[in-house]
Amino acid sequence: MATLVEVTDAGDPRLADYRDLRDVSLRKHVEAEHGLFLAEGEKVVRRALAAGHPARSFLMAPRWLDGLADVLEASDAPCYVVSEQLAEEVTGFHVHRGALASLHRTPLPDLDTVLAGARSVLVLEEIVDHTNVGAIFRSGAALGFDAVLLAPRCADPLYRRAVKVAMGAVFSLPWTRLPDWRTGLDLLAERGFTTVALTLADDAVDVVDAVAGQERVALVLGSEGHGLSAEWQAAADRRAVIPMHHGVDSLNVAAAAAVACYVTAGRARG
Amino acid sequence: MATLVEVTDAGDPRLADYRDLRDVSLRKHVEAEHGLFLAEGEKVVRRALAAGHPARSFLMAPRWLDGLADVLEASDAPCYVVSEQLAEEVTGFHVHRGALASLHRTPLPDLDTVLAGARSVLVLEEIVDHTNVGAIFRSGAALGFDAVLLAPRCADPLYRRAVKVAMGAVFSLPWTRLPDWRTGLDLLAERGFTTVALTLADDAVDVVDAVAGQERVALVLGSEGHGLSAEWQAAADRRAVIPMHHGVDSLNVAAAAAVACYVTAGRARG
Repeated sequence: MATLVEVTDAGDPRLADYRDLRDVSLRKHVEAEHGLFLAEGEKVVRRALAAGHPARSFLMAPRWLDGLADVLEASDAPCYVVSEQLAEEVTGFHVHRGALASLHRTPLPDLDTVLAGARSVLVLEEIVDHTNVGAIFRSGAALGFDAVLLAPRCADPLYRRAVKVAMGAVFSLPWTRLPDWRTGLDLLAERGFTTVALTLADDAVDVVDAVAGQERVALVLGSEGHGLSAEWQAAADRRAVIPMHHGVDSLNVAAAAAVACYVTAGRARG
Repeated sequence: MATLVEVTDAGDPRLADYRDLRDVSLRKHVEAEHGLFLAEGEKVVRRALAAGHPARSFLMAPRWLDGLADVLEASDAPCYVVSEQLAEEVTGFHVHRGALASLHRTPLPDLDTVLAGARSVLVLEEIVDHTNVGAIFRSGAALGFDAVLLAPRCADPLYRRAVKVAMGAVFSLPWTRLPDWRTGLDLLAERGFTTVALTLADDAVDVVDAVAGQERVALVLGSEGHGLSAEWQAAADRRAVIPMHHGVDSLNVAAAAAVACYVTAGRARG
């Protein structure tokens, strides 16, 4: 049973995990140093715990306690009970969904564990926007992808905003970091995946043709601004494009990911 | 030639159009009352002007003047030149892209003008998030849709955030408001469109089958939280779903729109 602790001072050091949640650079630092991440809202908190992340603590306004009574019953972590105003003062924003939890990160699985049995995986090179990372996880999960691999510079899927947008998919879809950017796609190829880079390059083929007949496909996505690096475009087995209407630059990366996942999930098998 | 006016006082009433850009409810009020909207960044400002929206004024830090020199040359509106710090003080955020413009809204076209020659259109019932509205416009434009129709309660495509995310698609893709929510879909049916409602309803068919062979398709999307209203689900000719992987609730509305547009744009013709 979680211990309920009423806190009335916004400066209370026990609330440190929840401080200034909108300050991205501060949070990156704090979360990395302490090996923690934040979950927001009853549904997401439940999914994070169910995925095996132990709670460090909870932060809730009184009216949210009932909804998570069973969760608190089953936990040994402290639950800080605060007014909604104090929650806003500490976190720096109005906590619409009431319940917050600070959870332990767990060691990332190794590549072969994540890829075991996988047929369709996403590889994200350098998506910098946490909203896009979350949206891509959600689309991947909804459309039947089996795993997500992140290059070293891709934004953190356990950052609060990504967790929220992914609606729990960062917990349901196996994922890990590639150990090294240069050799990242080679590791996929060695494991029998056809690596398909999404790009606007002139020699790109229609994504439908690029994935058709491929048993194992790794769909490779670049950054929001500049797309995939030249190195990864060259390293991929195939370069593919979603055919665009004349005069439009491109889909945004989350929309492109959704369409490419849809096409890949429905591909004819070899 | 625009008159360059240096402004050093954040309280200067001439900067009223640019005040508190992050305060959504204030901005809705101000923009409606004055019939204005804001464009942010050189590219978007150019597209807004090219689409026929006269400028009320520009707001720029000195280093952005050169990039828009030709635009300022061709305009009669004042250009307020301010420090980046003053811009931040007035707008309430750091203006990464440097250039802002306040533009006149122009009267919305009537339905038949927007639908002339259209084969594929999007109908948005009550998308409340401006980012989603912008993303849907961008996907629609990229995937070859011809127009967008908005129910009375759908969020404003000319709100700054929507304009930015749409990357100009709110200017290139014809759009208007439906005059009335209740009769909205009937107006489409009367004009020969098969209305296809995206829903998770039990009787929904695969979207591929719903659009196949249809000459004119109106793809109908509901709100982020609760999807389409029961009224519009019943009023639509067909109810369609993007098949989801077991255990995942749904795609987010922007991802669903991208996939559904892709499928609809590539449908076999009747």
